[in-house]
Amino acid sequence: MENKKISTEAYKGTRDFYPEDLAVQNFIFDKMRKTAESFGYEEYGASILESSDLYKAKSGEEIVNEQTYTFEDKGGREVTLRPEMTPTLARMVAKRKRELNFPLRWFSIQNFFRYERPQKGRLREFWQLNADIFGVKGIEAEVEIISLGYEIMKSLGAKDKDFVIKINYTGILARLICKTIKEDDKDKIIATIKIIDRFGKIPEEDFNNRLNKILGEEKAEILKEKLNNGEMEVLAKQDKCFDEYRELKDKLSLKNINNIKFDSNLTRGFDYYTGIIFEFFDTNPENNRSLFGGGRYDDLLDIFGEEKIPAVGFGMGDVTTKDFLESRGLLKEYQSKTQLYICTLDKEYLDYANKLAQDLRNEGLNIAVDYSDKKVGDQITKADKKSIPFVICIGEDEQKTNKFKLKNLKTGEEIESLKEDLIENIT
Amino acid sequence: MENKKISTEAYKGTRDFYPEDLAVQNFIFDKMRKTAESFGYEEYGASILESSDLYKAKSGEEIVNEQTYTFEDKGGREVTLRPEMTPTLARMVAKRKRELNFPLRWFSIQNFFRYERPQKGRLREFWQLNADIFGVKGIEAEVEIISLGYEIMKSLGAKDKDFVIKINYTGILARLICKTIKEDDKDKIIATIKIIDRFGKIPEEDFNNRLNKILGEEKAEILKEKLNNGEMEVLAKQDKCFDEYRELKDKLSLKNINNIKFDSNLTRGFDYYTGIIFEFFDTNPENNRSLFGGGRYDDLLDIFGEEKIPAVGFGMGDVTTKDFLESRGLLKEYQSKTQLYICTLDKEYLDYANKLAQDLRNEGLNIAVDYSDKKVGDQITKADKKSIPFVICIGEDEQKTNKFKLKNLKTGEEIESLKEDLIENIT
Repeated sequence: MENKKISTEAYKGTRDFYPEDLAVQNFIFDKMRKTAESFGYEEYGASILESSDLYKAKSGEEIVNEQTYTFEDKGGREVTLRPEMTPTLARMVAKRKRELNFPLRWFSIQNFFRYERPQKGRLREFWQLNADIFGVKGIEAEVEIISLGYEIMKSLGAKDKDFVIKINYTGILARLICKTIKEDDKDKIIATIKIIDRFGKIPEEDFNNRLNKILGEEKAEILKEKLNNGEMEVLAKQDKCFDEYRELKDKLSLKNINNIKFDSNLTRGFDYYTGIIFEFFDTNPENNRSLFGGGRYDDLLDIFGEEKIPAVGFGMGDVTTKDFLESRGLLKEYQSKTQLYICTLDKEYLDYANKLAQDLRNEGLNIAVDYSDKKVGDQITKADKKSIPFVICIGEDEQKTNKFKLKNLKTGEEIESLKEDLIENIT
Repeated sequence: MENKKISTEAYKGTRDFYPEDLAVQNFIFDKMRKTAESFGYEEYGASILESSDLYKAKSGEEIVNEQTYTFEDKGGREVTLRPEMTPTLARMVAKRKRELNFPLRWFSIQNFFRYERPQKGRLREFWQLNADIFGVKGIEAEVEIISLGYEIMKSLGAKDKDFVIKINYTGILARLICKTIKEDDKDKIIATIKIIDRFGKIPEEDFNNRLNKILGEEKAEILKEKLNNGEMEVLAKQDKCFDEYRELKDKLSLKNINNIKFDSNLTRGFDYYTGIIFEFFDTNPENNRSLFGGGRYDDLLDIFGEEKIPAVGFGMGDVTTKDFLESRGLLKEYQSKTQLYICTLDKEYLDYANKLAQDLRNEGLNIAVDYSDKKVGDQITKADKKSIPFVICIGEDEQKTNKFKLKNLKTGEEIESLKEDLIENIT
């Protein structure tokens, strides 16, 4: 046993959740869970450790090695701390495809790791709700998934004006670029799409330089003009995909979801999308960023040699959600779940206090007993610091009569309460 | 994008949690969480990834490298997937020692990794409740922690006769060995304790051979005799520690916890215990094994260069708990949380069905709509397979009248229900 001094810091890019931090997580997760369940979604889970092959199939070896925590186990297997849920989900669905009943509605709230420089809204470890519906070809799946995202936002306290749902169709941008500037080099198109995703987010000069570098000045100039004068938007609206957007918009409108917007520049980071994609954006002008998003991915099961199953889903992270709620003042002050703190005037009353606590627990209350043997005033102060709302003190009288002075630490009010009335007086 | 076929298996020693599996986990975790909260414990959490130094301080480099998932990150930091919670907990307490209010009652339900051969009751990844009280020197801490473990067992449906709580005092065995066979080589004593832990669990011949090898035949013979005739037990009861056990027993008895037993052979796997240790054992003769345990560890904070704080805690794993509940028939059949499945006679009723579903969700019900456009009979069968208890079908009449035939899939019973009565008829 060595005795060198160990650091008390959490590993870089990860967080310690002290009770007041975990209460925020649990508040967010509870709303996600309850809303997903209200839509008939069933919760599943899996290990954070997966075979690296699972990610290489879609992302390529290099990206997996660079952007994830990947290492060899002692048996020589290459393993990865999962960076996202969809590959695991597809694996689980593929495995039991014949026994599962489609449409399948599943959700999970799990943690993920990405190897990147920690910055605002991006950490190395984060949590994410994933909700997916499998087995529905039609637009009903998109309607439901977007409704679910919308209802989660509402359950968290957001108003319609606080966010906008941007919709696009994966691949449409590539087609438009190909058509308008007669560019058909696939790598150039992909690079161009990635730059367009930064349009309006990075300084104009940067944007111009980067676009010039990819397309050459002439083509870059044409594309920029079309982006600036809204011509790309007009072209997108003439695309066949736009009909599907119109149907989606109508059906969402029937559910009173109207804060949606077509955005032909919207792209998603993953390659597996095959249809409509969407992102929920914060409308705060100072924080105009994507909150979460998803889309349709009908082809993912083929990496397991399984027949394809249509699928639509989204992932909603804890870090951006918490930042959003904080910026909108939607997080409540921490309040302990402990309802009553029992202090004692002397150690000799501890057995009585413990028995009383257990009786009240059996009635469904959350009770803590102070064992510090400090002055009663100090014990009460402690309860207050722990954000526990009520306190009683046990001395000779209380032990004899089962009658207590119940103090409300929020209001300072004190009332007499018999043991059998404590529950009513506290809850 | 490659197209080689990827395996659908989870990584060795880890589990996929399909909804029916996760429901069992959540059942266990809910009981743990509610009971811990009823004792005034607050939930905390932390990342599964920790600096390896945290474990080396107490366990030594070799054990950490051999028995854990340890690897280097891209910045050259050595990191470990945590194998247990206590070092993380001690780190978090040490970090905010001055702001925290003692006694501190904390719990967490988190996952852990150990590199070992998967076998019954032991997997590479497992979940564990950890509950700890910091800042209480006296026996009240042990009384409370053991009571908490007991109440969790009761909340899971266990009866007193299903388990026994074995108690010992860490270090007592070393003192007794030292005294009775005049052995004072520390390494030999530690090795002897590890063998004694296997007494009655491995074949007698094995036990004898291993003990002979450590102590030599003569001393081994004396010790075996004392173990067999119960003399060790008698000696233990004369030890000063035994008074503390007696006090603990009396105080637990006041709380009607009587299935406890002193066991001088009980040892715990970790080195940091400094006082009373305990383990909950299954009394099933075919599965007479430890379910979970813990004890007092007053010295752990010194690895962070912090003043010591008295602490008592325990860890309770999901795998052994689930095995126990299964063997006692205490797990209920899977039942979907979705309360009503809405089928449609034709696609044209989907908008109505979706609107109805949303109205009912707003009233607090969990509702799924079928989008498969299959025959109604098939849709109903699907609801039944998903263990959803109620179903209605939407056609022209229903859409017009808001009146439904509500079918209970458990009983086969069918009643007429107006929209506004659905909640009452379902819940």
